[in-house]
Amino acid sequence: MAHFHKRYHTPGTAPGTLHQQDKTTGVPLKISLTDYTASDFSELVLAEPEECRAHLESDSLTWIHVQGDAAPDTLRQLGKLFGLHHLALEDVINTGQRPKVDDYNDQLFVVMAHPVMGADSSDLEMEQLSVFVGQNFVVSFHPGASDPFDPIRTRLRDHSGRLRERGADYLFYALIDLVIDEGFPLLERIGDEMDLLEERLFDTPTRASMQELHRLKRTMLLLRRKLWPQREVLNNLVRDESGIIVAENSVYFRDCYDHTIQIIDLIETSRETVTSLMDIYHSSVSNRLNEIMRVLTIIATIFIPLTFIVGVYGMNFDNSDSPWAMPELRWYYGYPLVWILMIGVLVGMASYFRRKKWL
Amino acid sequence: MAHFHKRYHTPGTAPGTLHQQDKTTGVPLKISLTDYTASDFSELVLAEPEECRAHLESDSLTWIHVQGDAAPDTLRQLGKLFGLHHLALEDVINTGQRPKVDDYNDQLFVVMAHPVMGADSSDLEMEQLSVFVGQNFVVSFHPGASDPFDPIRTRLRDHSGRLRERGADYLFYALIDLVIDEGFPLLERIGDEMDLLEERLFDTPTRASMQELHRLKRTMLLLRRKLWPQREVLNNLVRDESGIIVAENSVYFRDCYDHTIQIIDLIETSRETVTSLMDIYHSSVSNRLNEIMRVLTIIATIFIPLTFIVGVYGMNFDNSDSPWAMPELRWYYGYPLVWILMIGVLVGMASYFRRKKWL
Amino acid sequence: MAHFHKRYHTPGTAPGTLHQQDKTTGVPLKISLTDYTASDFSELVLAEPEECRAHLESDSLTWIHVQGDAAPDTLRQLGKLFGLHHLALEDVINTGQRPKVDDYNDQLFVVMAHPVMGADSSDLEMEQLSVFVGQNFVVSFHPGASDPFDPIRTRLRDHSGRLRERGADYLFYALIDLVIDEGFPLLERIGDEMDLLEERLFDTPTRASMQELHRLKRTMLLLRRKLWPQREVLNNLVRDESGIIVAENSVYFRDCYDHTIQIIDLIETSRETVTSLMDIYHSSVSNRLNEIMRVLTIIATIFIPLTFIVGVYGMNFDNSDSPWAMPELRWYYGYPLVWILMIGVLVGMASYFRRKKWL
Amino acid sequence: MAHFHKRYHTPGTAPGTLHQQDKTTGVPLKISLTDYTASDFSELVLAEPEECRAHLESDSLTWIHVQGDAAPDTLRQLGKLFGLHHLALEDVINTGQRPKVDDYNDQLFVVMAHPVMGADSSDLEMEQLSVFVGQNFVVSFHPGASDPFDPIRTRLRDHSGRLRERGADYLFYALIDLVIDEGFPLLERIGDEMDLLEERLFDTPTRASMQELHRLKRTMLLLRRKLWPQREVLNNLVRDESGIIVAENSVYFRDCYDHTIQIIDLIETSRETVTSLMDIYHSSVSNRLNEIMRVLTIIATIFIPLTFIVGVYGMNFDNSDSPWAMPELRWYYGYPLVWILMIGVLVGMASYFRRKKWL
Amino acid sequence: MAHFHKRYHTPGTAPGTLHQQDKTTGVPLKISLTDYTASDFSELVLAEPEECRAHLESDSLTWIHVQGDAAPDTLRQLGKLFGLHHLALEDVINTGQRPKVDDYNDQLFVVMAHPVMGADSSDLEMEQLSVFVGQNFVVSFHPGASDPFDPIRTRLRDHSGRLRERGADYLFYALIDLVIDEGFPLLERIGDEMDLLEERLFDTPTRASMQELHRLKRTMLLLRRKLWPQREVLNNLVRDESGIIVAENSVYFRDCYDHTIQIIDLIETSRETVTSLMDIYHSSVSNRLNEIMRVLTIIATIFIPLTFIVGVYGMNFDNSDSPWAMPELRWYYGYPLVWILMIGVLVGMASYFRRKKWL
Repeated sequence: MAHFHKRYHTPGTAPGTLHQQDKTTGVPLKISLTDYTASDFSELVLAEPEECRAHLESDSLTWIHVQGDAAPDTLRQLGKLFGLHHLALEDVINTGQRPKVDDYNDQLFVVMAHPVMGADSSDLEMEQLSVFVGQNFVVSFHPGASDPFDPIRTRLRDHSGRLRERGADYLFYALIDLVIDEGFPLLERIGDEMDLLEERLFDTPTRASMQELHRLKRTMLLLRRKLWPQREVLNNLVRDESGIIVAENSVYFRDCYDHTIQIIDLIETSRETVTSLMDIYHSSVSNRLNEIMRVLTIIATIFIPLTFIVGVYGMNFDNSDSPWAMPELRWYYGYPLVWILMIGVLVGMASYFRRKKWL
Repeated sequence: MAHFHKRYHTPGTAPGTLHQQDKTTGVPLKISLTDYTASDFSELVLAEPEECRAHLESDSLTWIHVQGDAAPDTLRQLGKLFGLHHLALEDVINTGQRPKVDDYNDQLFVVMAHPVMGADSSDLEMEQLSVFVGQNFVVSFHPGASDPFDPIRTRLRDHSGRLRERGADYLFYALIDLVIDEGFPLLERIGDEMDLLEERLFDTPTRASMQELHRLKRTMLLLRRKLWPQREVLNNLVRDESGIIVAENSVYFRDCYDHTIQIIDLIETSRETVTSLMDIYHSSVSNRLNEIMRVLTIIATIFIPLTFIVGVYGMNFDNSDSPWAMPELRWYYGYPLVWILMIGVLVGMASYFRRKKWL
Repeated sequence: MAHFHKRYHTPGTAPGTLHQQDKTTGVPLKISLTDYTASDFSELVLAEPEECRAHLESDSLTWIHVQGDAAPDTLRQLGKLFGLHHLALEDVINTGQRPKVDDYNDQLFVVMAHPVMGADSSDLEMEQLSVFVGQNFVVSFHPGASDPFDPIRTRLRDHSGRLRERGADYLFYALIDLVIDEGFPLLERIGDEMDLLEERLFDTPTRASMQELHRLKRTMLLLRRKLWPQREVLNNLVRDESGIIVAENSVYFRDCYDHTIQIIDLIETSRETVTSLMDIYHSSVSNRLNEIMRVLTIIATIFIPLTFIVGVYGMNFDNSDSPWAMPELRWYYGYPLVWILMIGVLVGMASYFRRKKWL
Repeated sequence: MAHFHKRYHTPGTAPGTLHQQDKTTGVPLKISLTDYTASDFSELVLAEPEECRAHLESDSLTWIHVQGDAAPDTLRQLGKLFGLHHLALEDVINTGQRPKVDDYNDQLFVVMAHPVMGADSSDLEMEQLSVFVGQNFVVSFHPGASDPFDPIRTRLRDHSGRLRERGADYLFYALIDLVIDEGFPLLERIGDEMDLLEERLFDTPTRASMQELHRLKRTMLLLRRKLWPQREVLNNLVRDESGIIVAENSVYFRDCYDHTIQIIDLIETSRETVTSLMDIYHSSVSNRLNEIMRVLTIIATIFIPLTFIVGVYGMNFDNSDSPWAMPELRWYYGYPLVWILMIGVLVGMASYFRRKKWL
Repeated sequence: MAHFHKRYHTPGTAPGTLHQQDKTTGVPLKISLTDYTASDFSELVLAEPEECRAHLESDSLTWIHVQGDAAPDTLRQLGKLFGLHHLALEDVINTGQRPKVDDYNDQLFVVMAHPVMGADSSDLEMEQLSVFVGQNFVVSFHPGASDPFDPIRTRLRDHSGRLRERGADYLFYALIDLVIDEGFPLLERIGDEMDLLEERLFDTPTRASMQELHRLKRTMLLLRRKLWPQREVLNNLVRDESGIIVAENSVYFRDCYDHTIQIIDLIETSRETVTSLMDIYHSSVSNRLNEIMRVLTIIATIFIPLTFIVGVYGMNFDNSDSPWAMPELRWYYGYPLVWILMIGVLVGMASYFRRKKWL
């Protein structure tokens, strides 16, 4: 996971330039068209954007979804067909944008961040969902490997309920609602990981757990950076003044706004939890150091004086002439007395340590 | 206490879907109806929501309280009876919502957090209280094991005072006032625990106290996350523009707002206190380490030189030929002189340490 | 100093209930009446609130001050006499309120925090001053042991200056101005303590200084929690819209607002200073540890090799047969050579340490 | 990289004084004039500002760019020619200004910060770009060594596209767009450095990496200080009320605003990453200390008791007379038994350490 | 530098009381009068404030500057002459006020903080500049030892430029502009000190550098507390509604506002730098501790096993009877073999340390 992942144009390039990306994701492009009214429904995969022209003239609602790394040509054609602004198209190709909503009079351009989990939570990718919404069309771009919108298509195809009867704004709501709600299972998984990690940290703080903590922190930082701005986006959509979102659907965007705030809340809590876990890690590490020092001190302070004592009686003073030269060595109970002395020192030390609560 | 406790729908589900929860709390459902005017009063337990239909047509104020894990069917029936919005019902079933107030024209939907303490403060549960308030009805949901609103029912039943004479908004006030005020005894208990912990930390910082501190921190984090948004909720209720809350009762909601702010204040203070206690813990731990190091150093630095001295006179130089080979060993007062030397070293060291203030 | 000191009602109690406090402060109640116009002045101590009824009907300004723990009965009588709101009276009895101003149409209810210092700064008590201000009366409550308003009464009694000529709002200003200004000598004393503590910390960081720092931190936390809200209170009073405060006196409340901000400023600075002092404490402690480690290392690294050398020549290899078995022991200058070797090691070590700047 | 790099006048100097700078950058001054309409285009290098007078009277758009350290005289002449305010000219000469936009009725004065990278990222310079925009002229100042605006001139010269057809505001947009977008490659490079550093920190935390971290922190601090205010600048330009920026170009400034926010976002993330890397550094360092302590403790606690044992049997008690004087020394298997004892101690210690997870 | 330096009145004193200060600065009072129109100019030093009465009646602009500790009497006389508010005069005498602007209808009262450097940067004093501005007069008070406004007087006296032609508001601007700009040289000096300190910290972190860091932190804290509020003051002056500041001079106050923001910016950056330097200090200290521990560990772990070995062969097992009693001592190559063993241990240890990167 690199620290910088934002595509950008060479400074000084003219605005709206759509150049080929150096680093493509290698995902083959797939353009799906879904066209429906309350009564009719058709879907097909387009080879060229041009093929959708027929559907644009009808009254039906047309949804074009471009999955994979959009080529400049495809963008240019779609731009011409739907009248999309060149600055917005530049933002579609330069993925890594901050979530935002831009109002181009007769259409809204919205960028959202879609958290996509890999096999383990360190594989988190924040894919950019770009959506154009007009009166009777939705054009969406998602550069990821797999299309996240199959549940929506199933709901459109199967039951002719609310989704088929309402306009482009409601379809748009369904798309971003799905992308936002992906935050919940993600945060649940992260929460579960934290539960496991916490237990481990109290017992055995290892370097690996430090690295996992750091990885979690980076994940939270990434999530936070991408999902905070969505609050502002949803707030703008709830108070939409462009006329794209009709008043009766506003309550659904308010619900989305609510979910966004809940997710941000959960992210902030998780961030504080990571900080808290770091504290536990450091406390555990320093507890271990203290325990090590304590053991060292006890062993050393007990044996250093004893070793001194036995050293004394290892001296070679010549006691053949002088009565002052280590007479203890010739005492009848000299050796047992030394042991009694040493056991006395040991007991004294031990009781001192016990009083200090080191034992 | 797991890090994630929020129920949510699978992303992509249609809005307002009321599905059966996987993890039910196992609390049996109990639907109580309380119906009163200033003069009349009746209460009963309903087997089916439908049974309350008779009471709805009268002029009396009807309060339905659903205690326990609400089943999707019950919600659907109540939704039909009182005209509750399907997005709001989804929030009732997906507990773990953030406190909020939603205005659905002729009714308010309010989510509050009810702190419920277990046997010890680490058992804290934040139960979700969901309330719908209309012109002459209140529908409340509480998923917890025991009904917190018995004191209100007693006040309604016993004295025919203010509560019986005022409208649905005043009953609603009484409900949330109770739920908010539960914060005071909770924070008092936490404060008492902190008093005890503080004393212990200065004397004997153990790993257990670290764990207790961490648990307290998590409790404060949870409380804060759930109770901060209530400030905004109450602020909205004080300035209510839906017409549900009449002007003369506004002063009571202002009082609730006041209590909410006081509780938030106390939470923030407790959070800072926990941080402060962590500092004390770390200082105490590092004080202990210092003390251990000091003792080790004193013992080691005193005995290491002495051991060297006795080592010197333990050498086996052959003094039979050479006058240079350890003549001290043959001195008459050699042994006592060594002791004098060693006591000199000891006294020197001790005075050095005393000057350094290590003794 | 306990962490929780807020009185509250059992959750679920009806609003405005005035119950007897469990923990009374034991201060005997004293109700003083001061009644004056520009020309007349009278003061007396009331046995019963009822006794003031005569003064209420006159045009004079009546100031009732209740010193000590107000009994529910006294509050009820005063409430009836002056038409005080029952929610406000509940706040008078439940001391520990957050400073606030409530506007009850024809009267203001204001809660302020009065810092009262004991013999040493750790005895700080934040007493709650509750004041009702109407057109021609002021009713004030202070639960503390001694009446802080004697200087005001002296100014009223002695010189017939500004205070006697202006209305109830000016008297009210005089009361809160006094209470706010008490912050200055308090913060001066805390500042002086910090000056002393700072010097001590650089030299000898002890556990006692850590405890004193922690106590200072708690004091600052308490002051901050209680005095921050006064800023909002004063701001509201300056922009008063109730008509209680006349325009020409507004400049005095602006002056109070100014003092409040200065005190908050001083508190914030003191808080940062405490944090800074904690840093100094920790640095000093870790400096001491480093010094201890340095001494231990120097002693140990010098004597450990020397002890090894003397140990070598304490070995008992039998040199009677083998010329390889410790021939040094039989050299003529063996013993002096060992000393030269050891002094060489000592000098080498010392110069190494000097190069490392450890000596 | 010094901590202070702001030019300023001696306090008390009259406002608008243009004095010679003491510390000039030594870059020779170059004044380029670019004059164009949709159809015509001319560019030349001016020796004296006066030479541009001819171009001012025509309808064409005149762009004067002053590269290098502007002399007071040049500024005075340009000031007179274009009617630039003396306070703004003072800000041009006193580089190190905070980015800002000042509205002088018929012209805008804008200060931007241009990040210029040297050979390695520690050579970062924040150059001040000062631009005056009027109805049909742009005057820009850049004190750096090399002219950053060559790509703009090429776009003007080559293709007669959008840039040539629009007004002074669009040229102004092109200039600041380039300067803002320079942030992206800079932050990419910093991100790459962090990727490398992070790996190194986990393995071998050295003093050099600490210094690099500190340098990165200072770089982020500098970037943040200079680029944050640009957000406000762009926000003002989007909502421009001076009439200099025409409504149809507003969308381009909104795009710039967007890029500014993205860059600030990246800076904030990088700042948090640096903090995170510091944590890793400290954890790695303390891990190493712990490991060292562990090894020391294991070696010491194993050998200290063993050395005591061999010390015991090095004592010289005279066992010729007393059966109590070290009879072990005369046992047939005494020596092997001592070894068995010592190996027993060793095994006991090792198993204790293994149980403690120190081995 | 004490932590508290604010003068205040005894709580309960009547507002506007001007009492004699206990702690006077001992600076002799000097009252200078400067009186001018575009054509005329006169200046004199007053013995008594009364002497300026003649100048007040003329059309000329009168500037009274009081240098030194203003006596209550002087203030009262000036108050009467110019109609200054008694609350404002109280603020003049009680120095240590927070910068602010008070609007008294026909005059502005402004408090600014003037940073005055002593010989070294720890001598920083924040002097209070108090200014009253009316239609045709300015009265300023500065309690410091030396008059900072000589440059202004020189500009007034010498060239009859802008300053002489504009009104009291422009003179007022000149005064506060000078006081604000004093921040630049001060911060430059602090920046230079930090440059020096930073280098020293990486190499040799001493207790003295810790103390210097702490002193810098306090300086920054003081500067911040005093200079932050000036932002609000200038903002108010730019948007002045009192009519004292004429519209055409507003641009000059905007310039002052700009400088204030730049200074605050520099202070914030310096604060973060001090924090950063503290981190470096702590890292350097802990690096040194680590190095000390590493050396201790290497020496100890090498010699402890060797000392054990020589201890083994210092044992006195009686090998006269038993072939098991230390037969090594009688081996022909026993002693060299012990040396080979010890050198082997040494080499093994060294290679282990080298592998661990401790050597």
